[in-house]
Amino acid sequence: MATTYSVKFDVAQKVVEVPAGTMITVAAEKAGIEINQPCGGQGRCGQCAVQVTSGNVRRRSTMRLSAEDVEAGFAIACQTTVEGDLTVVVPPQEKIQQHLTTGQSAADVSVPSGYDYLKDQTVQRIQITLKEPTMEDQTSDWARLKTALLHETGLSDITIPLAVLQNLPAVLREGEWKLSPVLFIEKGIESGGVGEVIDLIPGLIENDVPLWGAAVDIGTTTVKVMLVDLISGEPKGQASEYNAQIARGEDVISRIIFAGKGEGDKTLRSLVLESINELLERACRRGRSCPDKIYKIIMAGNSTMMHLLLQIPPSSIRLAPYITVANYLPVLNALEAGLMTHPTGKVICLPGVASYVGSDISAGVLSSGMSETEKITLFLDVGTNGEMVLGSKEWLVTCACSAGPAFEGAGVLHGMRATTGAIDEVWINEETKEATWRVIGEGRPKGLCGSALISLLAELLMTGVINKSGRFDYTLDTKRVRKGSHGGEYVVSWADENEINEDIIITEVDIDNLMRAKAAIFAGFSVLGDSVGMPLESVEQVLIGGGFGQYINVEKAVQIGLLPDMPWERFQFLGNTSLKGAYLALLDLKCRQEISDIANRMTYIELSADNRFFDAFTSAMFLPHTDMTLFPSVKIGGINNGLLSKIKMV
Amino acid sequence: MATTYSVKFDVAQKVVEVPAGTMITVAAEKAGIEINQPCGGQGRCGQCAVQVTSGNVRRRSTMRLSAEDVEAGFAIACQTTVEGDLTVVVPPQEKIQQHLTTGQSAADVSVPSGYDYLKDQTVQRIQITLKEPTMEDQTSDWARLKTALLHETGLSDITIPLAVLQNLPAVLREGEWKLSPVLFIEKGIESGGVGEVIDLIPGLIENDVPLWGAAVDIGTTTVKVMLVDLISGEPKGQASEYNAQIARGEDVISRIIFAGKGEGDKTLRSLVLESINELLERACRRGRSCPDKIYKIIMAGNSTMMHLLLQIPPSSIRLAPYITVANYLPVLNALEAGLMTHPTGKVICLPGVASYVGSDISAGVLSSGMSETEKITLFLDVGTNGEMVLGSKEWLVTCACSAGPAFEGAGVLHGMRATTGAIDEVWINEETKEATWRVIGEGRPKGLCGSALISLLAELLMTGVINKSGRFDYTLDTKRVRKGSHGGEYVVSWADENEINEDIIITEVDIDNLMRAKAAIFAGFSVLGDSVGMPLESVEQVLIGGGFGQYINVEKAVQIGLLPDMPWERFQFLGNTSLKGAYLALLDLKCRQEISDIANRMTYIELSADNRFFDAFTSAMFLPHTDMTLFPSVKIGGINNGLLSKIKMV
Repeated sequence: MATTYSVKFDVAQKVVEVPAGTMITVAAEKAGIEINQPCGGQGRCGQCAVQVTSGNVRRRSTMRLSAEDVEAGFAIACQTTVEGDLTVVVPPQEKIQQHLTTGQSAADVSVPSGYDYLKDQTVQRIQITLKEPTMEDQTSDWARLKTALLHETGLSDITIPLAVLQNLPAVLREGEWKLSPVLFIEKGIESGGVGEVIDLIPGLIENDVPLWGAAVDIGTTTVKVMLVDLISGEPKGQASEYNAQIARGEDVISRIIFAGKGEGDKTLRSLVLESINELLERACRRGRSCPDKIYKIIMAGNSTMMHLLLQIPPSSIRLAPYITVANYLPVLNALEAGLMTHPTGKVICLPGVASYVGSDISAGVLSSGMSETEKITLFLDVGTNGEMVLGSKEWLVTCACSAGPAFEGAGVLHGMRATTGAIDEVWINEETKEATWRVIGEGRPKGLCGSALISLLAELLMTGVINKSGRFDYTLDTKRVRKGSHGGEYVVSWADENEINEDIIITEVDIDNLMRAKAAIFAGFSVLGDSVGMPLESVEQVLIGGGFGQYINVEKAVQIGLLPDMPWERFQFLGNTSLKGAYLALLDLKCRQEISDIANRMTYIELSADNRFFDAFTSAMFLPHTDMTLFPSVKIGGINNGLLSKIKMV
Repeated sequence: MATTYSVKFDVAQKVVEVPAGTMITVAAEKAGIEINQPCGGQGRCGQCAVQVTSGNVRRRSTMRLSAEDVEAGFAIACQTTVEGDLTVVVPPQEKIQQHLTTGQSAADVSVPSGYDYLKDQTVQRIQITLKEPTMEDQTSDWARLKTALLHETGLSDITIPLAVLQNLPAVLREGEWKLSPVLFIEKGIESGGVGEVIDLIPGLIENDVPLWGAAVDIGTTTVKVMLVDLISGEPKGQASEYNAQIARGEDVISRIIFAGKGEGDKTLRSLVLESINELLERACRRGRSCPDKIYKIIMAGNSTMMHLLLQIPPSSIRLAPYITVANYLPVLNALEAGLMTHPTGKVICLPGVASYVGSDISAGVLSSGMSETEKITLFLDVGTNGEMVLGSKEWLVTCACSAGPAFEGAGVLHGMRATTGAIDEVWINEETKEATWRVIGEGRPKGLCGSALISLLAELLMTGVINKSGRFDYTLDTKRVRKGSHGGEYVVSWADENEINEDIIITEVDIDNLMRAKAAIFAGFSVLGDSVGMPLESVEQVLIGGGFGQYINVEKAVQIGLLPDMPWERFQFLGNTSLKGAYLALLDLKCRQEISDIANRMTYIELSADNRFFDAFTSAMFLPHTDMTLFPSVKIGGINNGLLSKIKMV
């Protein structure tokens, strides 16, 4: 009788007994845990890596694992057998899949240590008990309350908007002269500031009752909302959804054009408001709140999104010399802004830097921490555009390159957004040139999302299906490479195995678009480095933010020359840095001021006026680059280890 | 042949030749000047007084003229004959008539000497020429303008509301980077203040183009508007009309009740806004402006009017302990306030003192000058309520007595407002007890307005038709005194000589109401004096403001004990002191601050809680008073001189 061992998975409730030599994937299945094996258990993709924290295993292959990974117990589950009683940690690739499936990523934030509601928060709910008026004390309602508030807060002045004043007599009498006013103290909480009464609640409300705020990231493609209890600082609900403006143009340029026609600006404003209001509602359902209890909203987004949100004519963004109407926007109340939150609550749009470097970037820089580090840092946010910042706490330079929406799946024949049915990663067999892939939502594929395009381009290059110029090798013995109506093409998925009933292909035209996009981004890095006289090698860390950055495969992005070739540990994925920055600004006025400082400090380099950019772009129009010395680690035909740099990051 | 003389009237274009001994009224008629003779040329009313500045006359009677009046050349035109070549000034009683006829009185204001637009005015129109943006200078539109504005003005910060920001790119480009922003500088014009851009006009606008503001007085009965060029400070058009709220209650109490029912508050708000907007339109037509060019509006009015204007629930004003929701009201923009003026223009409601002492009184005190004089002054504003202030630059005490609307013609059987068809002055023949009267608009009478009621009450008393208790003497040989369904009554006008085809009468019930009203007001004076330990005799001047005060006859008001008995030269009629105060506040921030100071400084005495008031009221429930030593000049059965104290004042 064969020896059996017990295997305990951290994510399961029970321990399973399996014969010695059982593959970990098989043991996991027995425990009811499904470990994804996108490459079909070939040991090619490394996506099934697990961490064995105790017990003996035999690794048939350590492909895609670094020496440090193996040291730390990582093993490719489809290539590793049980050779003793094991404790196995299933790393968060499950989570990745979950995120991809729902098309939503919860920004992974935690309350900043040291957050002190009373000191940091500009919205304060105070408890006030007033003396009832008498014939001997005929002080008006507002003077009575104001005197008490000034005494309680030490502020130098307090104002009240008409809409709140109109409620004052009823609230005072309903609460029998006990009430909880909500103050917005813009100029700082310290003595001497000026407050505004933004709501009045009858009775005395204790601090265990949440006080609501929201952080909003308005992306060209996706809008994300985070509901926050301003007292504890804790996020209580998140929601994200496509920006309803998408139906009127996929990128900022087409939206600007749409805004300029007839009442296009009004349409776009109401569409994005619809999205935001719907998401606030959804986040509130999750957080057991309701939108009209939200008193402060911090908005981050690119400059075009901010202009469209406020119906500020955006056309100057699109036309030389490419300027915004305003980077610093007025503080609004919710009614004016069109939000369904408390009507006299405050809506604060974070400041941006330039037409193509918006408040998503200034907020991102704050939340990335790059403005406080001494390390030379490259911060990158690839969305519909590619924005990047180089610098440290001493200096910051920024630029944006119109990478175009290729990496978001637009401008590519079978491109699509990262939603259910999108292939998000592709592997090509070196020998047979056959493709395997992973699909979001696990059904049959419909198209290729951005991360699949990077992956596919890299695999095509590394397996020799295309050359450095992106041209196909028609001499290969595979039906997948062929000439079609769009020139050369490669079949990723045959019509009979997918949802759209036609071959899902990538064409030379698509490849050309992707190469332009990656060349633009890489040329951006070059110009930034050049503008401060610093070679890219001196960058000590690369911080990648933005929705797209969450799913990017560094290895493959380096292989195609999208990211600079440097030790993988220098790369860090930060998720939605814009939303995180908005969250920090929501909690702490100092963070908001710091974002203003960042926006102010950043030197913007206009690439469209910079000849260096055109030169760098031309040089980058090869895979990975004309100058292969810039990509020493990329060995076409070989596969690198270290995939876990991705898994760890999410 | 009889000697002829030439008579030159200042108001006519030609000199007339008349025989010696011609009555001045006849000469006037020949010159085309109609001099009113309400008492039919009996020399009884004195309303036809003129001033003979050169030449000889013979005065058949100087009744109603003081020795000083005669010295100054005044003569009763119906009692004076031409005895030489004359130059005659027709005093402004014509104007009185004109005012009464239209029911509108133009506030008689002139630009304060020393008004300096650049130093005093909080709305400033600046000329700015900007550099066009280039690829080398990609500053945003707003940062470009703001930098220039800060440099130009020396302000410490400048903000821009969203509605104005939305227009910025179009204005900059239309004006080819030349523009005239309109700033509102609330905190003072000096360096270091904070400005707000409230409008942007393309191109450079010179200071000979007016910059518009408006002062508004919201009375319970009448709304008055004055359009002003803020650069020259000159009033450019006035208009007044009944407050459209009248249809929902004639006094503040009934309006407060109406406001509390259903959507009554909304209705009342839109009614008064309708009145104000209509008047702004009318004033603008006169001043060749249009409402949407008005950038600043100053509002004065009683506390109820202010609450109703802003839809702040007014019910606490009416219920003990009688407090307002707020005396100091927030600065609004016009859109929020519901005005048709420039939407981002500023609407400033002046501060009041208490429920029944509103900003019409604090503005009135400023414009009366009493807060800057060393003279002990009594300021009185009799409208639907009677508000009064006693004091000087050192101290101010104020109170309001619910006199009721009797003096406005309400609560009196044949009472009516001072409009066409109202009798506004009555004379009773001492012998026959027959009545003569003057009618507004010169047609047949319809009823009795407030000044007629004072006049009538005084005449009834002085001619012995009623006694000190207001009871009729039925022993008199006249059909005019009779018993009717309301008790005793006096017929002012017979059915066949008036417009309403019934006898216009005053009843004992009416007289009782009028006595209550005058007693309340006089009791107010007593309590004010008492509260500072000062007898009424020490009052050095009595300043009378308000619409009602413009037409009051001091002599008769003293005779019935409504006004204290003191030398007539101590009385001064100031017209609409509330509108004048609003006008001054419109021009000069210092005046506005002074009104705030006044509101703050005034000690309010609540009469409904003061036993002294009830005592004083009871004592004043006689004509003129229980204590006749308070009214030494009133000799019942005799007629005083000095009518011109009225004529001069208008």
